[in-house]
Amino acid sequence: MTELQVYDTTLRDGAQQEGLNLSVADKLVIAGHLDELGVGFIEGGWPGANPKDTEFFARAKRELHLSNATLAAFGATRRVGTVAADDPQVRALVDSGASVITLVAKAHVRHVESALRTTLPENLAMIRDTVSFLRGEGRRVFLDAEHFFDGYLADRAYALEVLRVAAEAGAEVIALCDTNGGMLPPQVSDVVADVLAASGARLGIHCHNDTGCAVANSLAAVAAGATHIQGTINGYGERTGNADLLTVVSNLQIKQHLELLPENRLREATRIAHAISEVTNVPPYSRQPYVGASAFAHKAGLHASAIKIDPDLYQHTDPTTVGNDMRMLVSDMAGRASIELKGRELGYDLSQEPELLSRVVAKVKEMELAGYTFDAADASFELLLHGEVAGERLNYFGVESWRVITDSTGHGQALSEATVKLTAGGQRVLATGEGNGPVNALDHALRQALSSAYPELDKLELIDFRVRILDAAHGTDAVTRVLIETSDGTTSWNTVGVAPNIVEASWIALVDGITYGLWSQSVPER
Amino acid sequence: MTELQVYDTTLRDGAQQEGLNLSVADKLVIAGHLDELGVGFIEGGWPGANPKDTEFFARAKRELHLSNATLAAFGATRRVGTVAADDPQVRALVDSGASVITLVAKAHVRHVESALRTTLPENLAMIRDTVSFLRGEGRRVFLDAEHFFDGYLADRAYALEVLRVAAEAGAEVIALCDTNGGMLPPQVSDVVADVLAASGARLGIHCHNDTGCAVANSLAAVAAGATHIQGTINGYGERTGNADLLTVVSNLQIKQHLELLPENRLREATRIAHAISEVTNVPPYSRQPYVGASAFAHKAGLHASAIKIDPDLYQHTDPTTVGNDMRMLVSDMAGRASIELKGRELGYDLSQEPELLSRVVAKVKEMELAGYTFDAADASFELLLHGEVAGERLNYFGVESWRVITDSTGHGQALSEATVKLTAGGQRVLATGEGNGPVNALDHALRQALSSAYPELDKLELIDFRVRILDAAHGTDAVTRVLIETSDGTTSWNTVGVAPNIVEASWIALVDGITYGLWSQSVPER
Repeated sequence: MTELQVYDTTLRDGAQQEGLNLSVADKLVIAGHLDELGVGFIEGGWPGANPKDTEFFARAKRELHLSNATLAAFGATRRVGTVAADDPQVRALVDSGASVITLVAKAHVRHVESALRTTLPENLAMIRDTVSFLRGEGRRVFLDAEHFFDGYLADRAYALEVLRVAAEAGAEVIALCDTNGGMLPPQVSDVVADVLAASGARLGIHCHNDTGCAVANSLAAVAAGATHIQGTINGYGERTGNADLLTVVSNLQIKQHLELLPENRLREATRIAHAISEVTNVPPYSRQPYVGASAFAHKAGLHASAIKIDPDLYQHTDPTTVGNDMRMLVSDMAGRASIELKGRELGYDLSQEPELLSRVVAKVKEMELAGYTFDAADASFELLLHGEVAGERLNYFGVESWRVITDSTGHGQALSEATVKLTAGGQRVLATGEGNGPVNALDHALRQALSSAYPELDKLELIDFRVRILDAAHGTDAVTRVLIETSDGTTSWNTVGVAPNIVEASWIALVDGITYGLWSQSVPER
Repeated sequence: MTELQVYDTTLRDGAQQEGLNLSVADKLVIAGHLDELGVGFIEGGWPGANPKDTEFFARAKRELHLSNATLAAFGATRRVGTVAADDPQVRALVDSGASVITLVAKAHVRHVESALRTTLPENLAMIRDTVSFLRGEGRRVFLDAEHFFDGYLADRAYALEVLRVAAEAGAEVIALCDTNGGMLPPQVSDVVADVLAASGARLGIHCHNDTGCAVANSLAAVAAGATHIQGTINGYGERTGNADLLTVVSNLQIKQHLELLPENRLREATRIAHAISEVTNVPPYSRQPYVGASAFAHKAGLHASAIKIDPDLYQHTDPTTVGNDMRMLVSDMAGRASIELKGRELGYDLSQEPELLSRVVAKVKEMELAGYTFDAADASFELLLHGEVAGERLNYFGVESWRVITDSTGHGQALSEATVKLTAGGQRVLATGEGNGPVNALDHALRQALSSAYPELDKLELIDFRVRILDAAHGTDAVTRVLIETSDGTTSWNTVGVAPNIVEASWIALVDGITYGLWSQSVPER
């Protein structure tokens, strides 16, 4: 069987995503991650069309040392009525130094006529000329047949002629693109099978997720005979995104036992997906298949008792195959079993201590009734658990009082100023902090107040803040729940606070966030 | 052909999502949205197992007036070794008053033995007994055959026997559940076709998205003969979520021309998906198929001129069929057409005033770029529109300054105190108000300050308050959006404020809420 090619286009098509903007340095870092993952090809961008991409290929030659992947440059066929050898855009592809050139070409009659504004024969000549020229320059050529599926449905003969011409001129792979993303799996399957029979070319698949079927469409194409798979990490891409490459590859490797990545590389999937989202600054999607933070998280109490017996009963695959973990969520749907499991996950064996377990369950229920939720606040749960086990809560500092003033003169932005009075390290401390909101100001004042007793707090940073008004029917009289994420630069943790006053709820979560940060560094109470 | 049933389980299986926690009031609001969308069935929860769900069904009887949907209660078969009629959990299902009961039953031999810890025949007896009992109580019964696909692969004969027993006892629909979500479309297709041929029962499909194929799996099941589709709005659910019901329905209606929702309801899909995400407080996923903010967004450039010639060249379907919009730029959230339509809805004919329309569009775009959203804040939009038409904003009072102090002595609840200085009715007024939070205090102070100039404010009440942190990556430095709902006892309206400071954002929304309340009563500026 022909080897399956994994072709990543995160750096080119993925970068079309709304709000995603990659520097050359970002692209180089991502390319390194992709190579470590073990993809066969990394499409770096469109040299000549985009100065950043020209620079990327120039720097890649010097700075990137790929152990597995081959770099591909993306570009278009020559302009209407010219010669490929004289087209500066085609020349830039050669100059990029990439050994693989992926040429986008029109395969849809209406696009040739309306968008390219040329004749059907001239489009074929453009393809033939450009592919031949690049082959003559010693490059491998892949063809992205744009709008192929729509084009095939509009004029099958012409769409097939595009493939025939490209293959005859020396294109090694013809990737069939569902550019508008409107296909469903049975269509993809039928078209790929027909095209394969009619052309005999090596076919690739390039899907977008507009029908929510990009992954299934990619799988359908492979089942029908495509042997080259294009996609992006985290499904980045224009509109609804491209096929999520890690989901496609995980399905093919884990469910269909095909070989795509080098041995043991899939185990790096979760880490690499998250590392790339750090570079793109697009928050990871927790519900992402296989690599999402929630992908193997369980909440239902019903399931928890059975999971204790046999985890495979409630998970479709072993999460470690993709470098992910099973997690138990603590929530009002959870009973003793899930709290026991959660404890085990955190390193507490509660199975031999039924009374302690009962106390923790009762405490969790009581707090959840008051509006707390621990399924998104592991650190607060762990502090609670630690307190029940130790007999008392951690107490790094004693709070005497705090105050926040927010004011506005009607001109310019409102400002907040917080004053905190507390005892830490045997000293009574007063500190004041400013911020662009009451929580920001309290955070600054609290750190300021603790800075001399606990210099370890220096590297802690509040990185996320979410507010939920509970029982909204009471308007501003409602209870407020605040979730806070704190980071020490390496790892992060979530804490929760609940109170009628939004500022007080935030304060509770802030205090937990800082307490957890100190405790997890094994800092003693001073 | 049998009519296709759309069965929503957002309120039950969707609520299993990490971080999602719905109050009874939230559930009632969501059920109203689902009914408006036109789903056939709304699974409300598990009465008896969860006190909140018991309350939901009790309140639904009094407060929910469904025009299209039927409410379904979810529950389990009777306990091992008991009688259905004597099982309190089964009794609670009857007591819920729901006319449809969806019973979850084990269809996998290993789950019967390891998780349920009973014999294979007893599991069948539990199903027969419980279905028969509920039928005897005059209820329609749907069966959720849990872990069906895994169970079928493990022991086909037993899985089929579960269906046969349930159907024989009177279950109207057997929903085949891919509970662990590990299936791929060809497997689903094969199993559904085989089960249909073997059992002749009416089959439903219930998918999870662990392989990224929940939508495609649902479509494969329908193609193989399933006529009942389960899913959740926005694909909420445990782990990677359930099948996104709106994507499945959109594909079936738009791509396969099947009828599922009542006429013209699909056009409400985008609005309702976003309204529900306001209730769940789970940020909408911009790349969501069909209804996502980016689903029809195009980066300008290569496509721009072609899109002008023929938008269908670059979109897989007309976005208005799902109530969404094509967007050309990141900031281009509001098109002229939708603002013109919105104006008409509010009684302003902008079609003959292209310059005014342009000004309003420009203003809306500018504000949306800053974080405003008018989807859920009609009153703020109307005030903006009125201001552009009149040439100046309504100005019932002039704000000089405001200040809020929130403090806590470490004992008891924190208190907030606000002072507002403004000019109204020709007088400079100072007023102070207290509250259990900064917004509550500001609301009290503002009303107090305006009470003599505008006694009409007496009957206004702030009834809802929602906070969303935008661009959460900046932590407490992020921009905050506050939505406020104000009522005069008869009707209510929504306003929005955006600012880095949460208190300032709330203040802006409060001022709009009060201004709209005065203006809509035709109160003159004093």
